Amino acid sequence: MNSLRRLGVFDSGLGGLTVLNEICKNNQGLDVVYFGDTARVPYGSRTPKTITRYARQDMRFLLSEGVDAVVIACGTVSANCLPALKEEFSLPIVGVIDAGCEAALAVSDSKRIGIIGTRATVRSGAYEQRLHQLCPEAFTKGVECPLFVPLIENGFDAQDPITRMTVERYLSAFNAAKVDTIIMGCTHYPFLTEAFQKVLPQVQFINMGKALSHQLREQFCLPDSTAPSKVSYFVSDPDTGFLSIANRYLDAIEANSVQTVNIDRF
Amino acid sequence: MNSLRRLGVFDSGLGGLTVLNEICKNNQGLDVVYFGDTARVPYGSRTPKTITRYARQDMRFLLSEGVDAVVIACGTVSANCLPALKEEFSLPIVGVIDAGCEAALAVSDSKRIGIIGTRATVRSGAYEQRLHQLCPEAFTKGVECPLFVPLIENGFDAQDPITRMTVERYLSAFNAAKVDTIIMGCTHYPFLTEAFQKVLPQVQFINMGKALSHQLREQFCLPDSTAPSKVSYFVSDPDTGFLSIANRYLDAIEANSVQTVNIDRF
Repeated sequence: MNSLRRLGVFDSGLGGLTVLNEICKNNQGLDVVYFGDTARVPYGSRTPKTITRYARQDMRFLLSEGVDAVVIACGTVSANCLPALKEEFSLPIVGVIDAGCEAALAVSDSKRIGIIGTRATVRSGAYEQRLHQLCPEAFTKGVECPLFVPLIENGFDAQDPITRMTVERYLSAFNAAKVDTIIMGCTHYPFLTEAFQKVLPQVQFINMGKALSHQLREQFCLPDSTAPSKVSYFVSDPDTGFLSIANRYLDAIEANSVQTVNIDRF
Repeated sequence: MNSLRRLGVFDSGLGGLTVLNEICKNNQGLDVVYFGDTARVPYGSRTPKTITRYARQDMRFLLSEGVDAVVIACGTVSANCLPALKEEFSLPIVGVIDAGCEAALAVSDSKRIGIIGTRATVRSGAYEQRLHQLCPEAFTKGVECPLFVPLIENGFDAQDPITRMTVERYLSAFNAAKVDTIIMGCTHYPFLTEAFQKVLPQVQFINMGKALSHQLREQFCLPDSTAPSKVSYFVSDPDTGFLSIANRYLDAIEANSVQTVNIDRF
């Protein structure tokens, strides 16, 4: 089992902070480097080729920071280029898909499972493919929800009537499918869990970050420490709002400072 | 007066097509090069420094195509970096702000003028500054409307209840201001004109592309031709959906083919 001291985590922007939060809540003593590609967000509406090019640069930056392993805290990157990244880089790389799919199959009785995500994530078919590998008889249905990330990033919360109406619109695609579990295939979506549950109260919604944070303990030999994990934050666009937004996303840890990376150089 | 044969037009993505459409509707015989930076869209949520870096690359690409002048068909770029670009490049550069502000002052009786735009556009204060230069006694009020572009780009039209509720939310900021004219400070917004007018029926909404297309005739010596203008389309992310989306945006011309540019090289 690989031992893990310095963990790299990256996302197209801020959504990955929900994964980071779960990792730090459930794992002590880690030294974490978080990179949010705020200059090139969002990835979810881009083509697989562009997403892969960006993800390669994100990986190279984290490697330059001396990490032992990388968590891809982004549904879009995990869905579109995990195999390409695993081929190119020799250190362990963990995406959110496996953890999300395993958690969904563990709680689903009917094995009728939905996936919600960005356009690129859903079109990749990666979640459905993995679910069928793990459980060939599973029924799966993916639904593109491209407006959720802009809503969340612009301060529309789960209680807002505009959010609620948008959630109703997108989730109505599941009316006939009778799924009992839906994977929130984008790391932003846990912010809207309450709105999702109001529209489909009988469905269980899977938070991939939570699933992944438990998976890390099984896959790696983690520091034997009770000290809180420490995080260094990097972004590609030094938006002065990063820290205040980050602290809205985080409750297990705090973000006090952030550094800027010129990601085009990697 | 500069003569103009080959005109460059650029935008962060697709919104500039509304400006291109107006230019081609009102000006014959032009040879136009359109660049949409689809790999790095949206600019509106980025910092001024990043926007300026991107705009410089966009300019350099258009220069490599041999254009005589450039129209910045993007409210965000016009608002954040027109002076910097004019300093660096010697060819004529026309932004949407001057045309929009002049058109607004021409139709406004009360000289109480609103501006709606992306976060970066409104925070730049560029429209308000220009309006005050042209008319020191003008009252101005800018309102950030960050959800309009994602709504339009994801197919929510002016009739959609979610669009209408969002328009009501943002435009309610004008309730107390009693403006009689509002500049649509983002080139995407003309798609929502009908929804805007429903919420504020007494207000005149200014389409910057329309204003700019007339301004070109005053500023340049244009080809004496009745042949339709011809456009070559370039994008930075070869999203196969570009042509179909473009043809939804265009009615004065057609888009039949598109080429890909690696904009990082410029």
